[in-house]
Amino acid sequence: MARPDPADVARVTCVGAGVIGGGWAAHFLARGYDVTVWDPAPDAEPRLRRLVEAAWPALTQLGLAPGADPARLKVAPTLEEACAEAEFVQESAPEKLELKRDLLARLDAATPPGVVVASSTSGYPMTDMQTTAADPGRLVVGHPFNPPYLIPLVEVVGGERTDPEAVAWAARFYEAAGKSVLTMDRELPGFVANRLQEALWREALHMVANGEATVRDIDASITEGPGLRWAFMGPCLTFALAGGEGGMAHMLDHFGESLKSPWTRLEAPELDRKLYDGMVDGCAEAAAGRSHADLVAERDQGVIDVLRATGRLPEPPRRSAG
Amino acid sequence: MARPDPADVARVTCVGAGVIGGGWAAHFLARGYDVTVWDPAPDAEPRLRRLVEAAWPALTQLGLAPGADPARLKVAPTLEEACAEAEFVQESAPEKLELKRDLLARLDAATPPGVVVASSTSGYPMTDMQTTAADPGRLVVGHPFNPPYLIPLVEVVGGERTDPEAVAWAARFYEAAGKSVLTMDRELPGFVANRLQEALWREALHMVANGEATVRDIDASITEGPGLRWAFMGPCLTFALAGGEGGMAHMLDHFGESLKSPWTRLEAPELDRKLYDGMVDGCAEAAAGRSHADLVAERDQGVIDVLRATGRLPEPPRRSAG
Repeated sequence: MARPDPADVARVTCVGAGVIGGGWAAHFLARGYDVTVWDPAPDAEPRLRRLVEAAWPALTQLGLAPGADPARLKVAPTLEEACAEAEFVQESAPEKLELKRDLLARLDAATPPGVVVASSTSGYPMTDMQTTAADPGRLVVGHPFNPPYLIPLVEVVGGERTDPEAVAWAARFYEAAGKSVLTMDRELPGFVANRLQEALWREALHMVANGEATVRDIDASITEGPGLRWAFMGPCLTFALAGGEGGMAHMLDHFGESLKSPWTRLEAPELDRKLYDGMVDGCAEAAAGRSHADLVAERDQGVIDVLRATGRLPEPPRRSAG
Repeated sequence: MARPDPADVARVTCVGAGVIGGGWAAHFLARGYDVTVWDPAPDAEPRLRRLVEAAWPALTQLGLAPGADPARLKVAPTLEEACAEAEFVQESAPEKLELKRDLLARLDAATPPGVVVASSTSGYPMTDMQTTAADPGRLVVGHPFNPPYLIPLVEVVGGERTDPEAVAWAARFYEAAGKSVLTMDRELPGFVANRLQEALWREALHMVANGEATVRDIDASITEGPGLRWAFMGPCLTFALAGGEGGMAHMLDHFGESLKSPWTRLEAPELDRKLYDGMVDGCAEAAAGRSHADLVAERDQGVIDVLRATGRLPEPPRRSAG
């Protein structure tokens, strides 16, 4: 078993060098890893190097790990050579189940025993992808957001045949690599963030399909509206604040009826006692002792800071140093 | 007809002083209006004054209009007195159709002829709310986001019996009052932003109802994930970037199949040629001449700035002034 301590990993292999795989490579390079990439596309290497080059100024601002260097990027001619010395493998192939299944079996065969192999899949359950691998126990999902070098979230979950220790190892590894990890204890198609994002996306597609809104309207309605809050306060806590001092309970009392309105193509669940309590208690837990006034002040300052950061509000005058 | 030029409005009446109505009052005060409020709740006034007081530091940071002063807030004892001299009325009563219908008829009766009366409704079509008013032509929807004093978006739309000039007037008034206006040419339950937001919200409720994710997971999955991008780049343009240099067309080619996956409870529309072209052309229009590289650089800088603004990345060292 060649599974190193998660914090000691030095060599990472990225399989697939498209937007996501290339983004992972850029992230790992910036965190100071040796990164080996394999991608079967003939133009993969120049595209990858362009991507890393374009990302590097952002990564420099984010703060490079000691020794981080784009020169530590190596492109391997074959999958087998790419994986031969890997201490962690991140697969980011196109989103096709058969392809992922075959590729994960090949990666499993080519990678030293025990080393964890993670898939960037946007939504396939690992249970469906790990069927043909000789050692399915080390195969996990590590689902990033675009671009992986900037968006902290990684959703980590195993399949039915995944060793729970491989899931735990992957979560610790991603944390060591500077990511924000959401470990799931069950497989849910689309995980958490993608289910939320996808519901919004499908509603947007329906609106465009029916001529109800344009791409511009949709984008503006988010960036000028709820998107400003979601950068720092999630939809649940945000809606709890819409309930005023009465919080989520008051919000559900007030807007519960609207769940029956056709505000989206998505049918709402029954707002029974259990769900009501789950939301109210969940928001209390998420508030973690912050009062309504604390949360309002935090949200207000957050929106102002985001408006300022995105150039929609001038910077405050700096006080002279005297 | 007592409808002033939108830029000349000096006196605004807010009916309902809960979280939304009170937030509107705070916004209008900060923009330098005289604001009269009416709310039937016995504790409305102290609650309202607390809200305005709590919002004022944020409003000061946003930049107060000349003469803006919380002392210009007046609470009227009756609806009739509140509306008698109004040049614009914003209704923010609880979200109940019958109540809104009756209230709008009363507001119409109490407000000088021609003055526009807007409803903050989160999703009722004005057509359903304007049925009993004597002059339905001046009734429009002006749907804000919480808190109305911070989130720029207002969705403006009329009902079947609304005078299109009242809609156009409201849009110009809100712009003069510092809002970002999305004018809709048809009634869509939930408008645009709320349909998108509500789809996400219902998916979240389903997940909590089924024990698939906690409130904390849901909130973190947004603030650590897609929420960071949505503060400045909408879901369409964001997804266009996920298509790499091939943009939205490549993204749809690549992920189109996933629309059939059960990633959300919301069924996707058929990705036919018309929708495909609508998304690709819409994104090209939204990009407004910016190249893929421009958009990537903009997104990267945006995420970094938002991470910094929300305290998740240290400020860069300031250069000494020498």
